[in-house]
Amino acid sequence: MITLYTWTTPNGRKVPIMLEELGWPYEVRPVNLGKNEQFAPDFLKISPNNKIPAIVDHDVDGGPLSIFESGAILTYLAEKSGRFLAPSGPERFRAMEWLHWQIGSLGPMLGQLGYFAKRAEEKTPAAIARFTEEGERLLGVVERQLAQSPYLAGNAYSIADIAAYPWMLAATTFLKEPLAEALADKPATERWLQEVGERPAVKKGMQVPQV
Amino acid sequence: MITLYTWTTPNGRKVPIMLEELGWPYEVRPVNLGKNEQFAPDFLKISPNNKIPAIVDHDVDGGPLSIFESGAILTYLAEKSGRFLAPSGPERFRAMEWLHWQIGSLGPMLGQLGYFAKRAEEKTPAAIARFTEEGERLLGVVERQLAQSPYLAGNAYSIADIAAYPWMLAATTFLKEPLAEALADKPATERWLQEVGERPAVKKGMQVPQV
Repeated sequence: MITLYTWTTPNGRKVPIMLEELGWPYEVRPVNLGKNEQFAPDFLKISPNNKIPAIVDHDVDGGPLSIFESGAILTYLAEKSGRFLAPSGPERFRAMEWLHWQIGSLGPMLGQLGYFAKRAEEKTPAAIARFTEEGERLLGVVERQLAQSPYLAGNAYSIADIAAYPWMLAATTFLKEPLAEALADKPATERWLQEVGERPAVKKGMQVPQV
Repeated sequence: MITLYTWTTPNGRKVPIMLEELGWPYEVRPVNLGKNEQFAPDFLKISPNNKIPAIVDHDVDGGPLSIFESGAILTYLAEKSGRFLAPSGPERFRAMEWLHWQIGSLGPMLGQLGYFAKRAEEKTPAAIARFTEEGERLLGVVERQLAQSPYLAGNAYSIADIAAYPWMLAATTFLKEPLAEALADKPATERWLQEVGERPAVKKGMQVPQV
C-alpha cells in the first residue's frame, strides 16, 4: 500500500494519475495548503521542503520508504512497475529530459505566472510580463515537440506526459487569461491535451484529492 | 567521446563537474548566451528548449545520443558509469529527490532572484522580495538537511550535490547581497560548500567553459 500526501494543484495531481495508470491501491492524505498543513512537523519528516506531493511506500524491503518531489516519485513508481519509462536506451532519456524540463521550466514558470497574474493581491506588471513571456515561449516548445511526435518523449506515453498534463491543463484554464493568445493555433497541443485528458486514469487522478 | 554544449552559468557547470568526477574525455562547445547562440538552429536540434547544458554522446549503440536538461544529463552519466547514484534502493531515491528539488526549486528560484535583483535594469521590489524570501527558505532547507547528513542525499556524495553546488556557490557570491543574512550562521552549509568545493573535479568543472 502507498500513502499519498497531496493537494488539488498541478504538482499534486501528477502522482494520483500515475497510481491510477498503474492500478495500484493507495490511500490519500489531503494536505490542505490553504490551512498551511504542509508546515506541520509530521509532514516535514516526510517532505523536508514542506511541499506536496510526497508518498510513503509501505511495501519496501527494510521498511517504509518516503519520497518527496513529484519527479522523483514518478521515476520511483516507473522503475518499481517497469512502466511509462524505458529501462535503458534513448527512449529512457527522451522521457527523462522532458520530465526534467517540466520540473525545471514549465512548472516553476507557470507557477510564478499563477502567483503574479492571479493570486497576488498587488499586481506587479514587470513580473507578470516576464512570466507571461516565458509561459508563451514554453507553450511554443511543447507545440513544436508534439508536432513531431505523438507524445512529449516520442512514440510512447510516459511519465513526461503525466508530469506535463496537469500544468498544460492549467495553462488552458486557470492561466487562460494571460496565456490565451499563446494557446490559439496550437493544433498538436490541442490533440495531445484531448487524447491524454481522455485516459481513464488521467480523469480519475485529476479528481484526487476530493475535498 | 562526449561533446558538451555549455556556458559559464550554474546549470552550465554541473555537467563538466560530473565529467571531471568520472575522468571521461569530453570536448567543450561554448554556447555564448550573451550573443544568443542558444537560439542557433543547429543548437535547437540538440536542445529543443534552447537552453544549456546539452551533450552528445558519440559512444552509444545505434548512433550518437543527444540529451538536454542538466538533471537528465547527470542521471544519464550516473547510470552509464554506475557512479554517484545508487542503482536501486532508498539511496537511489534520496539522491533523486534532492536532484529534483534542485531542478524544480533551488535553481528556478535563485535564477529568478538573480534576474530581478541583479540583471533586470528596472528593479521590481515585489518580485525581489518574493524570490529573496523563497531563496532564504530554500537555504534553510539545505542547512537542516546538511546538519543531519554529510551530503544532501545522505552519507554519499551524489549527483544531488553536483547539481546543487554551483547554485549554492552562486548564493554566496553573485547573490550574496540579497541572501547575505540568510547565509550567516549556517555551519553545515559552510562545511559542505568547503568540502565539495575542494574536490579536484569540482575545481576543474567550475572553470568550464574557459572563455
